[in-house]
Amino acid sequence: MSELTSSPTPTPAPGQAAPLPKTYGMLLFRGYELLDVFGPLEALAVLARRTKIDLYMLAETLDPVTTEPLMPSMNSFNSSFFPTVYPTHTLANAPDIEVLMVPGGIGTRSPFLNDTIGWIAETYPKVQYLLTICTGSALVAKSGVLDGRRATTNKASWSSMTLYGPNVEWVPKARWVVDGNIWTSSGVSAGIDATMAFIEHLYGEDNATEIANIMEYERHTDPDWDPFSEIWGVPSA
Amino acid sequence: MSELTSSPTPTPAPGQAAPLPKTYGMLLFRGYELLDVFGPLEALAVLARRTKIDLYMLAETLDPVTTEPLMPSMNSFNSSFFPTVYPTHTLANAPDIEVLMVPGGIGTRSPFLNDTIGWIAETYPKVQYLLTICTGSALVAKSGVLDGRRATTNKASWSSMTLYGPNVEWVPKARWVVDGNIWTSSGVSAGIDATMAFIEHLYGEDNATEIANIMEYERHTDPDWDPFSEIWGVPSA
Repeated sequence: MSELTSSPTPTPAPGQAAPLPKTYGMLLFRGYELLDVFGPLEALAVLARRTKIDLYMLAETLDPVTTEPLMPSMNSFNSSFFPTVYPTHTLANAPDIEVLMVPGGIGTRSPFLNDTIGWIAETYPKVQYLLTICTGSALVAKSGVLDGRRATTNKASWSSMTLYGPNVEWVPKARWVVDGNIWTSSGVSAGIDATMAFIEHLYGEDNATEIANIMEYERHTDPDWDPFSEIWGVPSA
Repeated sequence: MSELTSSPTPTPAPGQAAPLPKTYGMLLFRGYELLDVFGPLEALAVLARRTKIDLYMLAETLDPVTTEPLMPSMNSFNSSFFPTVYPTHTLANAPDIEVLMVPGGIGTRSPFLNDTIGWIAETYPKVQYLLTICTGSALVAKSGVLDGRRATTNKASWSSMTLYGPNVEWVPKARWVVDGNIWTSSGVSAGIDATMAFIEHLYGEDNATEIANIMEYERHTDPDWDPFSEIWGVPSA
């Protein structure tokens, strides 16, 4: 088989109740981190060749969304290395989604994301699953949705990010954490492993393994694997 | 330190002659593979917070570029899971670039990429480095640039892709291959490892390690590591 070949639609994993989610929404905002968005979307795009799923890219407006930080001080060397991506829908006109994905990035520190944060609080009760990547969990923490929940976040930015969620039970050593229908991952590339585990949860190990093989990606399958917690000196890790 | 902190500009790795490349061009075409583009760009975007580098996104026209395959038969389940990205320059008006990057994806099989392939042949003599990801090496092979060179490509699509380069010395088992100033990687996520190795080549191991730690990414540092070669039954692997 090759990347071209389509397999039969995977069946739900044992114990996984149908119907499986068909609609995914990725939240975008200025200063998002590239791999937080496109690592998970790669894994899901391969899944999309094996079963019907749809993706919406959601932001406050339909303007192009750049990874460029709002403040020039966050781009000390005056680099211009900022791909832009276009939303498909505004938050106000977003279709119903079953899986909401929230990436991280420098932009999560922006003081101008109140509408987005409000939208997360309003939308969470309507989705089947919420996945956050990296400091995306801090954005969701600001919305109150993580209160009383176990969650993790980026390890290099641990101290500043966890402040946004004083009522969250932050897990200092974890590649990802699952609490109910909320999946939170550690920094950047951890989003790929969390997404692969999410795919395994929905479609079983064989499908997740095959998707990883197509991506030539060696998964971390242990949610407790986290050398970066120690590398970045996360307290109590 | 956190993802916000800027380090002093890294110095060239020992034995690495200055000046280091400052301008990177990523080639885009319909049906490119998401992670082929955004995995390497993530690593380089972190580098861009530590030294000045610029990125150009290049395509035949300035129209948005979708990952959607040209032929509906390549999207058997009628999914709509296709983020679009916008080029910054057309190939005809591309600024001078020092590092050319060519991703792979289903679109490399398109019969309508002759202008792009011609542009690769014409541009290669002017760049310092050429990096390909996944089946991007097949696109470059079509241009003749890989003739007589050692190179690798996606392992799941090995048989069909290597046909595009009958005069290429294809390496069946490799995470990535370096031949002169041409770096070719294996499938999809291998592009991240090849890019990290390229950063190490230019800026030394400490900088590459720190960038990987910021990405919370466990690198494969051995170019010969390639379990996928066997998994996909690549002949003579």
